[in-house]
Amino acid sequence: MQIDLNCDVGEGFGAYTLGNDAEILQHVTSANIACGFHAGDPTTMRRTVRLAAELGVAIGAHPGLPDLVGFGRRNMHISPRDAQDMVLYQIGALAAFVRAEGATLKHVKPHGALYNMAAVNLEIARATAQAVSRFDSALVLIGLAGSALIRAGKDLGLRVAQEAFADRTYEADGTLTPRTTEGAVISDAAAALEQCRSIILQGVVRSRPDTVVHLQADTLCIHGDSPRAAELAMAVRHGLEADGIEIRPLA
Amino acid sequence: MQIDLNCDVGEGFGAYTLGNDAEILQHVTSANIACGFHAGDPTTMRRTVRLAAELGVAIGAHPGLPDLVGFGRRNMHISPRDAQDMVLYQIGALAAFVRAEGATLKHVKPHGALYNMAAVNLEIARATAQAVSRFDSALVLIGLAGSALIRAGKDLGLRVAQEAFADRTYEADGTLTPRTTEGAVISDAAAALEQCRSIILQGVVRSRPDTVVHLQADTLCIHGDSPRAAELAMAVRHGLEADGIEIRPLA
Amino acid sequence: MQIDLNCDVGEGFGAYTLGNDAEILQHVTSANIACGFHAGDPTTMRRTVRLAAELGVAIGAHPGLPDLVGFGRRNMHISPRDAQDMVLYQIGALAAFVRAEGATLKHVKPHGALYNMAAVNLEIARATAQAVSRFDSALVLIGLAGSALIRAGKDLGLRVAQEAFADRTYEADGTLTPRTTEGAVISDAAAALEQCRSIILQGVVRSRPDTVVHLQADTLCIHGDSPRAAELAMAVRHGLEADGIEIRPLA
Amino acid sequence: MQIDLNCDVGEGFGAYTLGNDAEILQHVTSANIACGFHAGDPTTMRRTVRLAAELGVAIGAHPGLPDLVGFGRRNMHISPRDAQDMVLYQIGALAAFVRAEGATLKHVKPHGALYNMAAVNLEIARATAQAVSRFDSALVLIGLAGSALIRAGKDLGLRVAQEAFADRTYEADGTLTPRTTEGAVISDAAAALEQCRSIILQGVVRSRPDTVVHLQADTLCIHGDSPRAAELAMAVRHGLEADGIEIRPLA
Repeated sequence: MQIDLNCDVGEGFGAYTLGNDAEILQHVTSANIACGFHAGDPTTMRRTVRLAAELGVAIGAHPGLPDLVGFGRRNMHISPRDAQDMVLYQIGALAAFVRAEGATLKHVKPHGALYNMAAVNLEIARATAQAVSRFDSALVLIGLAGSALIRAGKDLGLRVAQEAFADRTYEADGTLTPRTTEGAVISDAAAALEQCRSIILQGVVRSRPDTVVHLQADTLCIHGDSPRAAELAMAVRHGLEADGIEIRPLA
Repeated sequence: MQIDLNCDVGEGFGAYTLGNDAEILQHVTSANIACGFHAGDPTTMRRTVRLAAELGVAIGAHPGLPDLVGFGRRNMHISPRDAQDMVLYQIGALAAFVRAEGATLKHVKPHGALYNMAAVNLEIARATAQAVSRFDSALVLIGLAGSALIRAGKDLGLRVAQEAFADRTYEADGTLTPRTTEGAVISDAAAALEQCRSIILQGVVRSRPDTVVHLQADTLCIHGDSPRAAELAMAVRHGLEADGIEIRPLA
Repeated sequence: MQIDLNCDVGEGFGAYTLGNDAEILQHVTSANIACGFHAGDPTTMRRTVRLAAELGVAIGAHPGLPDLVGFGRRNMHISPRDAQDMVLYQIGALAAFVRAEGATLKHVKPHGALYNMAAVNLEIARATAQAVSRFDSALVLIGLAGSALIRAGKDLGLRVAQEAFADRTYEADGTLTPRTTEGAVISDAAAALEQCRSIILQGVVRSRPDTVVHLQADTLCIHGDSPRAAELAMAVRHGLEADGIEIRPLA
Repeated sequence: MQIDLNCDVGEGFGAYTLGNDAEILQHVTSANIACGFHAGDPTTMRRTVRLAAELGVAIGAHPGLPDLVGFGRRNMHISPRDAQDMVLYQIGALAAFVRAEGATLKHVKPHGALYNMAAVNLEIARATAQAVSRFDSALVLIGLAGSALIRAGKDLGLRVAQEAFADRTYEADGTLTPRTTEGAVISDAAAALEQCRSIILQGVVRSRPDTVVHLQADTLCIHGDSPRAAELAMAVRHGLEADGIEIRPLA
């Protein structure tokens, strides 16, 4: 039994910091690094790539919508063409820092509203997968388990990684409870660990209202922007390892 | 006798167009494509890369300062670290479209104020050259003939191309007359051709006030944003070819 | 019989120009000036306000979504709170130039996707109207004839102006044919004039497919960004005046 | 004896927060609120204006350079025309929220690099003062004590407030030690209080190397972005009050 733990990092901007990347990166195996559209700037990207490389964490691009003030969390009615171009741009930008540091880009995971749009809109999903494939067909595409993005990636012959969430609650249709809903974010480490166990060992996650959703996960996302993120990450990792589950990167 | 003719292209943004890339690219051998900071956006970059590739023009990155409203023409007191990071980011972003189109990135030429700063400030010059070298040491670095950027590129072992301008007047110290000065831009095709001839055949350019500056040029820049840019480019190209000078890309 | 003719102006940005404001402003009675989010920058705003003031054209704010690369034409899932804040910000910014020029701000008309969202989404409509009302309850709010925005403005006690379009085709439900649809923009001056006459004199506009939509218009929009915009504006104005219709600003 | 205490607030952006405005605003008498160029966004501005109004703190605009990634701290070679337009734009935007909240805009203080440029460059100083004057000649213009900005404001007949810094060290020429220099920021509350006392009671501040600079201050700036900013502000305020100095807003 094995699983990848991933975390969104490098989400500061200029004078602004967000999350504690240095701590959380000690507990995960894959890092999704913001690329300058929803968060991140060249200097933050360089630092974060270096940090991830030093800690031996697999590096991925985390492209988002061009909406810094909305942190890429507001859906935009972009065309598939827009989506493909903006994803390609951001992968390239991040890849430059990876190359300069002598590291290797391993995966791509869209951020926020782009992730959600690509989960349900097959055209956006295909455009996103196309960008990944055209840049480097050896990259792993991370998307919501069972989503349109996973399908689009498979259709293009990409390696895909189905993602589930350690610290977000689910709806009955398998989508994430919107962040604007009370209780959508799980901040209790024990509850997060329990959800991870259920996903890995039974392939199910409890959803709101009280039903279960079946899903298969290759990677679990732990958010890095909550105050106790590193603590939760460590608890999840140690708890899963205690169960004999190996924590290892995707590739 | 041979020379490269280069032009800055892809400098539109969103709904805005600037210059007539499709025409001017028929007359030059190297295209410097804007990367989204001073001009350019992902869709414009994709289209411009494709256009240059179709026309067999050598493709280069044209990174600028993060100053869209000022078109990258206002000096900013950035640190060398800032410079290196922003150049690396932009080269990577452009390179992604080049890769997706199956083309090859050949050169890098900084834009506007970044170009001017790198011409005289050795720290900024080194940082810029470092970004190019770290991304791909086979890239050609284009800089103002005799400038700090040329020196910095050579010091790092990069292939450099010394640039002179077909359509800009010079000062006695070899720098370009600032655009804000009356007459700084040469719009007469015959005058531009004469300046090019003088540079290539005698290695001198007449400067303001009436002195000559000695310079050695590997590439001549023709601006694409004046109303009669394509006409001027064609006149320069045909005039030089009539003199037996071969127009060919740098590599 | 009387009508206002309005036009969106000041939609350049930095080095980029769009439309020919100096010409089109000679034919309309109200100018909607971009405020820096979808287009426009401080210098462009100052110049455009001055130009409109000199020509005696009524000045209005034309706030848009924070999407420069998309020219404010891509819907974004913003909250009503976001909408109110961004409209208020933009009205204030434009009003500062109006004040500095000794002119008076007369109206507000949202741009692009914000206009379309406020036409059908009552929450966004209310937030937009609220921003106008909180800034200055004497301002006229321009919205699509019969839209949610008109209702929201009336509910708040604002003076509203129902808008119809000289140069855009309509759908059977009274909305504008999307720009992405072939033929959505009327470029023939005679056809535009005919549509204006029908709207003013009969209160109807022909829609696609061949039905009629009843609407009441206080102001007619003429777009300024097509190559022959000024010509079309002049033809519409002269044609309507020949019919004895007075062209005059809203207030 | 009396003095104003001012603080820069509202310097978050979107998902990013900076400083603890709610705490620091309890100890100062004037709030300089960021206007969206170097920091701040419409929602942050609305919230900060409301907070300052509720706490009875005098509200001012804090316009900066259009350099979000550099937090407005990197000098840019803007023209005086650029400066005037960007300051006017930002004052207007902030004033809209002040107006919507039923409060009154009291002062303007430029931020960061714009503040520093206006302190030494008389053209930029005049352009900045002109923007303030053209918006509302009753506004107080805050600038570095003894600077070009103070002179420019006086020349235009504006009320000016000479500013000194509680928590920044000075150079022998009366300018602030650059932030990049070790020890430029005073984080010890007792040292800050001592510097404030010296400025108010003796009209001198000790500078590096060990000399004194004579200055006259109407307002003291306390930075809000250090971890212990509120503590320092409270210590300064209580210390000065214990000396019988009245802490009161400028007007």
